[in-house]
Amino acid sequence: MTDFVDNDSKSNAQRRLNTITTHLSGTDHAFIDSLRLERRPDQVAYISPMDPLRFLLRSAMVYTNKPALVHQNVTFTYRQFTERVLRLANGLLDDYGVQTGDRVGILCQNIPSFVEATFAIPAAGAIMVPFNTRLAAAEIEYVLGHSGCSTVIVQQFFLDSRQVSVDHLAKVFPSLRLIIVADLPQTPHLDPYEVLLAKHTSSRLWRDLPLVNDENAVLSINYTSGSTGRPKGVMVTYRGAYLNTLNVAIHDAISNTSVMLWTLPMFHCNGWGFIWSMVAVGGTQLMLNKIDYDEIWKSLKTRGVTHYNGAPTVQNEVCNHPEAERLPRTVRVLSGGAALSNVLIKKMLSLNLQPTQVYGLTETYGPIAMSFEPWNLHDRHPDDLDARCKLMARQGFNTVAADEIRVLDPTTALDVPSNGTAIGEICFSGNLNMKGYYNNPEETAKTFRAGFLWTGDLAVRHADGTIEIVDRGKDVIVSGGENISSLEVENVIVQMDQVSECAVIGGPDEKWGERPFAFVVPRKPDHSLQADEIINHCRANLAGYKARLYVLLEIARLICFSAL
Amino acid sequence: MTDFVDNDSKSNAQRRLNTITTHLSGTDHAFIDSLRLERRPDQVAYISPMDPLRFLLRSAMVYTNKPALVHQNVTFTYRQFTERVLRLANGLLDDYGVQTGDRVGILCQNIPSFVEATFAIPAAGAIMVPFNTRLAAAEIEYVLGHSGCSTVIVQQFFLDSRQVSVDHLAKVFPSLRLIIVADLPQTPHLDPYEVLLAKHTSSRLWRDLPLVNDENAVLSINYTSGSTGRPKGVMVTYRGAYLNTLNVAIHDAISNTSVMLWTLPMFHCNGWGFIWSMVAVGGTQLMLNKIDYDEIWKSLKTRGVTHYNGAPTVQNEVCNHPEAERLPRTVRVLSGGAALSNVLIKKMLSLNLQPTQVYGLTETYGPIAMSFEPWNLHDRHPDDLDARCKLMARQGFNTVAADEIRVLDPTTALDVPSNGTAIGEICFSGNLNMKGYYNNPEETAKTFRAGFLWTGDLAVRHADGTIEIVDRGKDVIVSGGENISSLEVENVIVQMDQVSECAVIGGPDEKWGERPFAFVVPRKPDHSLQADEIINHCRANLAGYKARLYVLLEIARLICFSAL
Repeated sequence: MTDFVDNDSKSNAQRRLNTITTHLSGTDHAFIDSLRLERRPDQVAYISPMDPLRFLLRSAMVYTNKPALVHQNVTFTYRQFTERVLRLANGLLDDYGVQTGDRVGILCQNIPSFVEATFAIPAAGAIMVPFNTRLAAAEIEYVLGHSGCSTVIVQQFFLDSRQVSVDHLAKVFPSLRLIIVADLPQTPHLDPYEVLLAKHTSSRLWRDLPLVNDENAVLSINYTSGSTGRPKGVMVTYRGAYLNTLNVAIHDAISNTSVMLWTLPMFHCNGWGFIWSMVAVGGTQLMLNKIDYDEIWKSLKTRGVTHYNGAPTVQNEVCNHPEAERLPRTVRVLSGGAALSNVLIKKMLSLNLQPTQVYGLTETYGPIAMSFEPWNLHDRHPDDLDARCKLMARQGFNTVAADEIRVLDPTTALDVPSNGTAIGEICFSGNLNMKGYYNNPEETAKTFRAGFLWTGDLAVRHADGTIEIVDRGKDVIVSGGENISSLEVENVIVQMDQVSECAVIGGPDEKWGERPFAFVVPRKPDHSLQADEIINHCRANLAGYKARLYVLLEIARLICFSAL
Repeated sequence: MTDFVDNDSKSNAQRRLNTITTHLSGTDHAFIDSLRLERRPDQVAYISPMDPLRFLLRSAMVYTNKPALVHQNVTFTYRQFTERVLRLANGLLDDYGVQTGDRVGILCQNIPSFVEATFAIPAAGAIMVPFNTRLAAAEIEYVLGHSGCSTVIVQQFFLDSRQVSVDHLAKVFPSLRLIIVADLPQTPHLDPYEVLLAKHTSSRLWRDLPLVNDENAVLSINYTSGSTGRPKGVMVTYRGAYLNTLNVAIHDAISNTSVMLWTLPMFHCNGWGFIWSMVAVGGTQLMLNKIDYDEIWKSLKTRGVTHYNGAPTVQNEVCNHPEAERLPRTVRVLSGGAALSNVLIKKMLSLNLQPTQVYGLTETYGPIAMSFEPWNLHDRHPDDLDARCKLMARQGFNTVAADEIRVLDPTTALDVPSNGTAIGEICFSGNLNMKGYYNNPEETAKTFRAGFLWTGDLAVRHADGTIEIVDRGKDVIVSGGENISSLEVENVIVQMDQVSECAVIGGPDEKWGERPFAFVVPRKPDHSLQADEIINHCRANLAGYKARLYVLLEIARLICFSAL
């Protein structure tokens, strides 16, 4: 473990010297040999199943002693990181009895354990289930039950925050096993996760693991809030994950000189694929447990960050931070979840943050569409940055490994005319689409039709081929980059004895883009029901971002307005 | 058609302004809509067959009016280029009766027709057969016969050079159809190829073409000289070509701001995959009919070249050209076919040419291994560029979409120890391997064994995982980046009445790396047989580079030495 400090004052060559070591000493051939996968003799030589694990094994060989993961003041080289993954896979198999096809949950912030589990769980033949860290206890319980996880790797933080109660889960899911990650980089001997890893030093090698070897098998189930209340489990395949890895590597121009700061939650579509991509190119990932704008600026200024990703809400806070200043080198930023405003794009450019707007869903591995890049639009509006920013706010085109994005008439399933006014539903097909919703044939059947995945998002197609969302067909509220189901919030509010009816819609919000607005009718003319009670009830039963409510109470035909 | 001129004196933004136009006017939606592929209703939404044609259709939409191909002073935008591909596909189907699975040859220099045919032939459901432009008439005839081409797109140049005789071919292959490319950019109405394209303005759209839709089908057959005399047809699949496209795009860091100069012959492994890759990223390809060092330096200095590729022989000539001078921006260069010398690497770096050494075979889509990059080796030998260059001369590691490269004991098929001294045979597996040799079950069976493709190249594996070739197990001579079969040259020489026996081996050559050395025993003590006669006989029957002979005649137990 070595320190990872990189000052801009150092020359580029010096920076490379510090951050890139592409080889190991001459005595480590046993490690190199241990990375080998065997082929079955019946396998044809010209096809290997696409599996992101191959990227890790390659980078462990090529970038052995280069920093892979940096967390606080601890650095894991690719060798250390890879060895930790192998130990975790062995621990899952030996100590937790994980079987092929089991679901294994990850409830962690952006810490090394998340990245390690992303590779170790499939390496053990199991399917990973990343949890949204903002879910409330009841929601976590629902996802645990629905996915049928046999084991969950859970960070102590979520026990402390009472999102997870060990005692309660032991009653509800008697066979569930928890692996606690204390997240104590300085005192690993006090961390059960680290103790597990330390124990598994010399069991199976990679070639002995029960790898799945079917590129169309499910690698990950990512629960997401859609229109229908309960989160749905998006099934991600090995093939899709592999191709999306190459896809985002090309579009975000990452390489072995890249340093990514983890501002985006890793649970969101497996970090939009960048957990795999950064490993594939041999880059360095800087952990950030959760959004902390002081830390972001410290990292941007002193740790050689070249890339970060996040929703416009995050970009806004980054730009308006007191430490914000123009960076000496360009940092590439993907922004998704909502459109960037002209003001924000210009502010980012002034700080040398180069934004690219992406659009996608959990159902599409994250980013599947990309807008014009404003610096590539000079010919169209050479003197008008505002006009270029406006073009950039469109959802744009499919990315290179995705099929064309279609805008289809929901009745005829035919493409709408490309005239910028005819409205249709955004539909996807191809290798960057989910396989279906886990254990949910009804929702799967509703979502796939005529060979396409129907998103519910309504859009027009312009004559230049770009698509632009005009409305959401489903009752999804997007607040700070998170999906909120109107129906799910409604269902929680109507559980209150005092409530007769409730309707939740998305309303505009300067900071979060949208917030849920709840229209509530008390069960009887009950003047005692207060908006605060409703908000507190939601907070107790829903993720915090879903409870960030405006409540409008109908009382004797008067509307009473209350905001959190 | 617009001029493509780019001066270094212009600012980077200005350069982008000239070279990148990412959209079209608002009235072209019919073109955009024409690019659409239909899905079969029975197709699952989450899998699309990987097909490089998708890259072209996407770039036609995203980079519609951006320069795609530049040839002399003619530029084709992505729209024009794509329309020409569609017209050619229609012409092949309607005027030449091309059927699904037919073989269609390409015998062209690095001109737009080659790139267009690369997309149009598979779009017509056929298999492309790129011809090495250096083959002699008899060799071309052999490949035509073996591949069973129904049609060949042939540049007038090869009729003029007498490599192709229309009359003779008409006798040998009565049903063969030729499409002549006059290569007259200034007077297209005099060019039969252009007349064909002009005729097919409004027939089938992309969705109406007989696309193959099977990613494991054969896309291209690339004939290569191996150890056994006659060229063998390497079968390349859609899946492999698609993955190699993404693979080289990542490794050579190409993007929509890239300008590639075609110094590498396009017939070599489909331009090492860059014909597809440059299209996938929306870059610009500068044609260069054949190697011309004056033109190379003119392009490097005035046309914004960011990338070129070639064998060390080419790098050497580039570096030693009178126009050579340090470029204001870095140009990335892949070099393959033989190792770069320390002197040459240093010379290239001094000119701001950043070399990366690649290794591969036609059987692996071109580059499948990549060496250390010397600028990433500072930590190992910070003060010793020579030592870093020496490390770079190794063949290195597998590229990101390739499986690990194995060095196997030919007897046991087990990996040799990674000790830098144990010698084994380089073996490949995975998605960047050919499917087999076309119509050649014997050679295919010899090449594939135990699930691997056996290359015949002998190597060691070092403790850091890098591989390094120590000898070639097969009788292949690599001269100026071209493979020469010893056996093939021997077979031609022994056709001479005056020759009794002959052995050909590779010998060192300062300019070409290797040259064939022929040891010849006359049939009877015939003092009249001259080395010149042997060389002339070879020139008449072999590609020029194969006839670049040293001849050693055994005369009465004396060795008589003669060189071309």
